[in-house]
Amino acid sequence: MSATTSSDLRYMQQAIDLAKKGLYSTKPNPAVGCVLVKDGQVVGEGWHQRAGQPHAERVALAQAGVNAKGATAYVTLEPCSHFGRTPPCADGLIEAEVARVVVAMQDPNPMVAGQGIERIRNAGIEVLVGVLEAEAKQINLGFIRKMEKQLPFVRLKMASSLDGRTAMENGESHWITGEESRLEVHRMRARCGALITGIGTVLADNPSLTVRLSDEELAKLNLTQDNCHPIRVVLDPNLSMPLDAKMLGLPGRTILMTSRETAERSPEIVEAIDAKGVDMVAVAAEDDRLDIESILRYLAEVEQINDVMVESGAIVAGAFIQSGLVNELHCFIAPSLMGNMAKPMFVLPGIETMADKINLRIQSIDRFGDDARIVLALKD
Amino acid sequence: MSATTSSDLRYMQQAIDLAKKGLYSTKPNPAVGCVLVKDGQVVGEGWHQRAGQPHAERVALAQAGVNAKGATAYVTLEPCSHFGRTPPCADGLIEAEVARVVVAMQDPNPMVAGQGIERIRNAGIEVLVGVLEAEAKQINLGFIRKMEKQLPFVRLKMASSLDGRTAMENGESHWITGEESRLEVHRMRARCGALITGIGTVLADNPSLTVRLSDEELAKLNLTQDNCHPIRVVLDPNLSMPLDAKMLGLPGRTILMTSRETAERSPEIVEAIDAKGVDMVAVAAEDDRLDIESILRYLAEVEQINDVMVESGAIVAGAFIQSGLVNELHCFIAPSLMGNMAKPMFVLPGIETMADKINLRIQSIDRFGDDARIVLALKD
Repeated sequence: MSATTSSDLRYMQQAIDLAKKGLYSTKPNPAVGCVLVKDGQVVGEGWHQRAGQPHAERVALAQAGVNAKGATAYVTLEPCSHFGRTPPCADGLIEAEVARVVVAMQDPNPMVAGQGIERIRNAGIEVLVGVLEAEAKQINLGFIRKMEKQLPFVRLKMASSLDGRTAMENGESHWITGEESRLEVHRMRARCGALITGIGTVLADNPSLTVRLSDEELAKLNLTQDNCHPIRVVLDPNLSMPLDAKMLGLPGRTILMTSRETAERSPEIVEAIDAKGVDMVAVAAEDDRLDIESILRYLAEVEQINDVMVESGAIVAGAFIQSGLVNELHCFIAPSLMGNMAKPMFVLPGIETMADKINLRIQSIDRFGDDARIVLALKD
Repeated sequence: MSATTSSDLRYMQQAIDLAKKGLYSTKPNPAVGCVLVKDGQVVGEGWHQRAGQPHAERVALAQAGVNAKGATAYVTLEPCSHFGRTPPCADGLIEAEVARVVVAMQDPNPMVAGQGIERIRNAGIEVLVGVLEAEAKQINLGFIRKMEKQLPFVRLKMASSLDGRTAMENGESHWITGEESRLEVHRMRARCGALITGIGTVLADNPSLTVRLSDEELAKLNLTQDNCHPIRVVLDPNLSMPLDAKMLGLPGRTILMTSRETAERSPEIVEAIDAKGVDMVAVAAEDDRLDIESILRYLAEVEQINDVMVESGAIVAGAFIQSGLVNELHCFIAPSLMGNMAKPMFVLPGIETMADKINLRIQSIDRFGDDARIVLALKD
């Protein structure tokens, strides 16, 4: 076993920084970075850009050419050992005769975890695993959760006033937060694979739920106007979606989630929705409330979604919180007061005493223009 | 006129740091610091500790002795020119034959502003005014406001869940925020001259409203268990204060504020309150709501209060916000959700559309244990 050196940490950080360039564009693949170092010189760098395009290791090896021989490879995720759309990266490193491979984290897929590492070790190459593992995990939270739990990583976004209100009593809510916050929300949309909202929000606001960023902003995320939109998922237990809803005429797919019962009961609506080119998925439900775990499992297993974002009203947001399946709460808080008649952030039935309150953990606090953003993790 | 040098900035910062030691203990006087520098050496340092005790300049001059002659004096506030409990500091500096005086800010009292500076200049000593003025103003916001507007500086403190709730529907609220936040609230109490609450809070919670800090914590604030408590001010328009309320038996004064009408109407209650040793003040009121400006003017003008803290329920807090007389809102936000049935932060009658919302400005965000604190200024 070799020990971790300070240059291992430095080059792995560099590989992580490279991986981050793909944070918005590799879905459903993980973001991965690779750095090849020989005699204290970086001889190759690569990051995975997009599904179907070369893996980080392949890009770095191609750049290094013959210099890869005898180099140390820093990879943020265990090199793959299986033939997919591209040949296994483990084999690529072996064939290039690298001298040492440093890996931040094992493949989270329990079916293949450790196989790439073993393949490389079996070829007589020294492998060090676990360098900056926590940092590497941070960039692929969704991919890891999907692999480990067959569920997506769920970020619930809220925009509220300081006194915890998301709209006036009359429904008016434009704009609570400022431009910088809203820009970040569009980045969050571009990062997720699916954006969930409730039919109540659609009926009240007729939202677009598209990514509205300039070409320049999208280029920073390695995206274009054509590939930036997440799947829009509308929770519509009674199929009340208006077929002239704005989002149905906009770029990007829309999925209507309804209950099995409603779907069976309303063949003509299902047909009209189908004719409109909108996908419909029926999931388990109880008392008109769709089962959140079923929704998320469908998205992870069938749609290969790593990251889900929820943007909804207080009822759906509260139901997600109470499902225990939200991983992070992203609160954009405007420096304003909207008063006690304005709409609440969360409807949380059954919370009546201090013992019932839901406890979270603050992960970070930052500023977007005049607003604050607090990111919280749900306590395990 | 002399120019500001980098050593002027450095020594004035040192004087400001000294002044801050008196932040909790000088009321109703301002916090002031003084540094005497000769040939690049600090020869004297002083800060004002408490009303009746020597001013910062006197302490520094005593420390410097003959070394004061030819020195530069850095003072965070214009030296006084009048005989009070102590002889004028301007004269002290003149008599000590300092060569130069650097002042952060003029005396905010319009009756005497500039007189101390002029007195020193007339003695042929060079005076530079305005060095780190903004920083120096920050430490005496209450003193300055009282001098300029005959009103105290008002800090409204709130402790809420992330979704903007301050108590459960059943009134339960212990504890929303953590120990570190509550410790800071006690420091805030120790800093203010008067702590205002509403009778509703007294009837619901029977609070102590004392400063509960250890001897050690108090020593850091230059206070003791005997002199740390602010005046408790209970807004009690109908004189419903129970004469066995906990706070009436605790160290520190309590003032009941009521309406002139109630006071005239209820001579027997007034007498009982008086017999209990509690002060009563009658102010203007309209429809059972005491006039907030009258309350604050009384505290500034009669009680010589520089800094007021408001700790109350949603109705009084909302009324203070809508009075426009709150200077800072200090929100301690716990990482928890209490739901839509829990009590709101502010009752704000008449706020119905987005155009009505009250806009604030975030001044700072920090963490206290697991909580966040956001300090906001009301927009002018």
